[in-house]
Amino acid sequence: MQRVLINGEWRESNGSDSFQAENPATCELLPDVYPVSNWEDCEAALDAASRAAEAMWSLPADVVADFLEIYADRIEARADDLVEMAHLETALPKSPRLADGELPRTTGQLRQAAAAARNGSWSLPTIDTTTGIRSVYRPIGPICVMGPNNFPFAFGSISGGDFAAAIAAGNPVIAKANSSHPGTTRLFAEEAQAAAEQAGLPAGMVQLIYRMPHADGERLVADARVGATGYTGSQHAGLALKAAADANGKPIYLELSSVNPIVMLPGSLEERGEALADEFTGSCLMGTGQFCTNPGLVILLKGETTDRFVEMVTQRFQEAPVGTLLSRGVQSSLQDNLGTLVDAGAQLLVGNTPAEEGRCCFSNTLLQITGDQFVASPEVMQTEAFGNASLLLIADSVQQVCDTIDQLEGNLTGCIYSHSEGSDDAAYDQIAPRLRQRVGRLLNDKMPTGVAVSSAMNHGGPYPATGHPGFTAVGIPASLVRFSMLQSYDNVRAHRLPTILQDANPTGKTWRLIDEQWSADDVV
Amino acid sequence: MQRVLINGEWRESNGSDSFQAENPATCELLPDVYPVSNWEDCEAALDAASRAAEAMWSLPADVVADFLEIYADRIEARADDLVEMAHLETALPKSPRLADGELPRTTGQLRQAAAAARNGSWSLPTIDTTTGIRSVYRPIGPICVMGPNNFPFAFGSISGGDFAAAIAAGNPVIAKANSSHPGTTRLFAEEAQAAAEQAGLPAGMVQLIYRMPHADGERLVADARVGATGYTGSQHAGLALKAAADANGKPIYLELSSVNPIVMLPGSLEERGEALADEFTGSCLMGTGQFCTNPGLVILLKGETTDRFVEMVTQRFQEAPVGTLLSRGVQSSLQDNLGTLVDAGAQLLVGNTPAEEGRCCFSNTLLQITGDQFVASPEVMQTEAFGNASLLLIADSVQQVCDTIDQLEGNLTGCIYSHSEGSDDAAYDQIAPRLRQRVGRLLNDKMPTGVAVSSAMNHGGPYPATGHPGFTAVGIPASLVRFSMLQSYDNVRAHRLPTILQDANPTGKTWRLIDEQWSADDVV
Repeated sequence: MQRVLINGEWRESNGSDSFQAENPATCELLPDVYPVSNWEDCEAALDAASRAAEAMWSLPADVVADFLEIYADRIEARADDLVEMAHLETALPKSPRLADGELPRTTGQLRQAAAAARNGSWSLPTIDTTTGIRSVYRPIGPICVMGPNNFPFAFGSISGGDFAAAIAAGNPVIAKANSSHPGTTRLFAEEAQAAAEQAGLPAGMVQLIYRMPHADGERLVADARVGATGYTGSQHAGLALKAAADANGKPIYLELSSVNPIVMLPGSLEERGEALADEFTGSCLMGTGQFCTNPGLVILLKGETTDRFVEMVTQRFQEAPVGTLLSRGVQSSLQDNLGTLVDAGAQLLVGNTPAEEGRCCFSNTLLQITGDQFVASPEVMQTEAFGNASLLLIADSVQQVCDTIDQLEGNLTGCIYSHSEGSDDAAYDQIAPRLRQRVGRLLNDKMPTGVAVSSAMNHGGPYPATGHPGFTAVGIPASLVRFSMLQSYDNVRAHRLPTILQDANPTGKTWRLIDEQWSADDVV
Repeated sequence: MQRVLINGEWRESNGSDSFQAENPATCELLPDVYPVSNWEDCEAALDAASRAAEAMWSLPADVVADFLEIYADRIEARADDLVEMAHLETALPKSPRLADGELPRTTGQLRQAAAAARNGSWSLPTIDTTTGIRSVYRPIGPICVMGPNNFPFAFGSISGGDFAAAIAAGNPVIAKANSSHPGTTRLFAEEAQAAAEQAGLPAGMVQLIYRMPHADGERLVADARVGATGYTGSQHAGLALKAAADANGKPIYLELSSVNPIVMLPGSLEERGEALADEFTGSCLMGTGQFCTNPGLVILLKGETTDRFVEMVTQRFQEAPVGTLLSRGVQSSLQDNLGTLVDAGAQLLVGNTPAEEGRCCFSNTLLQITGDQFVASPEVMQTEAFGNASLLLIADSVQQVCDTIDQLEGNLTGCIYSHSEGSDDAAYDQIAPRLRQRVGRLLNDKMPTGVAVSSAMNHGGPYPATGHPGFTAVGIPASLVRFSMLQSYDNVRAHRLPTILQDANPTGKTWRLIDEQWSADDVV
């Protein structure tokens, strides 16, 4: 039985249940056995995290920056083990996906977070010399991170974006592994703990529990000792956690479902229909469609160019190899959700059949509906079929495209493709402002998959894509602010202020809002 | 029967119930009769607000800035009416409080909000030229504003900080008046509507409902058409609204109760005990103690200087005139909450008796407990007695002060008084980091009443002082961000970007984060 990481030690779990991960490429259980923790484990982790948070009060931000950099180096040194384990647990290809894509993204993100911690500008230090008031965003307290199944590295509970942001903001992390890749998470935790010791972080700054009963998870995110939670995963589980956290006034940042609507206007299809069929198919089937930003709803206008586009895409879906899904659970959800759409009247273009035996997979699937069908049953037609599938919607008119968009729930992304020389511009101008309100990131002529770690990224969006439309899970500095609280200092004696708010600029290049002007200078 | 303001028109309410405000100085009902709206009124307001929000998509920020400035001018022109009405409804003194304090604060706040809207820097425009991604905070949608009883102007539902912030961020406001001053709110709404017409804002941008059944209020803040809510008032009503909003994923910003702990260390009392007794008494009894930041819990260390301080304060409370409270409701709550504290074992120093007949008031009251009593029953001992009362806590040791603070719920403010030459510094260093985590604003040697409209102000704090410790209700630019959503533009064609994200700086002085550096220049 594997051990949990609590208070700097790998110790036996107090829980009595256990679980094993499955190799989705073979449908067989993997040998390692992981504990299902009980509340006693959570309690111990919460206490250790509280002590760590308190120890952090007097440590400079450089210590967490050092940790993040050492950790990134250690991840690179152990890359082969990590790639091997993640491949076994997720069936994601070793190369380029895991080794050449996700791993460098993960270490890059950790190093960006380190730089942000060192520099401090993320915390929006604000100085008002007239009133003698100064403010800054500071650590909120222990963060629970619960990562998704689809990015074992870059969104991993103890390696990904939420982890990096929480730590860089100065908080301890209690990571709960995703049950589909506990081994990968364990290897990361080993390196994280070693790096924490090397950097001199307090014990309990990085902790790992593999799994716990749902009721304990809800108790955890609502506990008084917790600062906030970052959760990425299913809407059902996420909303249960949200209800528990909300009831106790604990911030929880969720990244839930999204169908990521794409509007392809006729001019774009006329101009470059074949290229767009390739682009869409590539985006939709990449990673077997298992991205938060997978294009799950394509809105088209009735007409010949659309008919040709649908034919081309159907053919490509038919011919494309069928990827392996992350788990049996993903396979059965995909099958169920496609069934829901078909039962609601969606027409089958290709797929919707089990593919091979002996691995987790399902045929590449395209369904089609009319705009009338969507507007008549908008809720069921937004059923997310997570995986290698998409729903094409053929609208009668630009007005119907707008009506459709007005019925959309909040989404992470929305795209509009249009003719490069302006023939779709009237339609764009009607559609874009409506789509803009429904999505966190609006794209032109570009697929939504591929979420750059950029200062301007919004990997977020209106409910229920997330829990609050003002926060992004990806991108530095903004993702750090989620895990902080605003602390104002009023008339506090100069030497008692945190370094970042004292007159001298702490690094010579920290941006601070001094008397409403951004400046990297000292206060004069 | 007074009319509600919906969709730019003063119209009859569809509700059948009504209410009247009371003059707290006479305990008599005021003559004007106000409708209790039903859901039909709310529905009409929501529809109009949605249309207004849509109309705003294509209007420049200058239009709301114009509105805010015209409105501020109109408020000044009608100052006498406003002061007269507010005085009748709240018994707050006409001068200096209403005419010379709150009114200029209110118009100053509206003009600061106008300047922020015009300049745009509040929206944190962020440009990443490498990835072609740009982001900015933009209007979130119609905002419900429900203001408190204690600041009829500066926190008024259609005149105060939440209103100014919501409008400056580009959103329509549905204001619900506080039931204790509907007439003041009506006069503001008259000026707001006239200013909206003058400035060319869409109908439905400013709307007013006086009151509604609780169930309709909960339905309102959770409605799909609402962007967010700003509420200031009682914890009980606020948490009911929060539960409704949370369940539908609607942001709600709350400012609830707070006891605003003050620690007075022995050196400060030795050095300037008499001055501190004056300062504390002034802060605690000012406005008859009816401030969100009223010092309701004073933590002292056992000893002679503390004994002398307690005597001096007791005498001052005894001798100070007894102010009029805002309403019978405030009076009975104060009486009930003091009763709760006494029943829990608090010792009476002075007061806790009804004062005069014929007006809303209660004697200036001081209670005292030991640190042991607090630590044994921390929840009940944090009962907020809103009004001209405070609870003194005499701790045995600095350690017990820390233990006390560790049991505090979230508060808006926390203060520490210490000797000016350092004799209290060891105690300060032990206490301050703990208090820091419990409060939004930490003060030294200064009372918490008086909330400057500063860029560095945090009028917020950990739950249950507010619903989220990352947001402030006072201060520009930060208070505006609450009423916005993050919108990212990825590969969007240059001419389709909002002006504020295009290469040219829109005003020549808008701060934008360009490639991680703050700049007021164009993108080069």
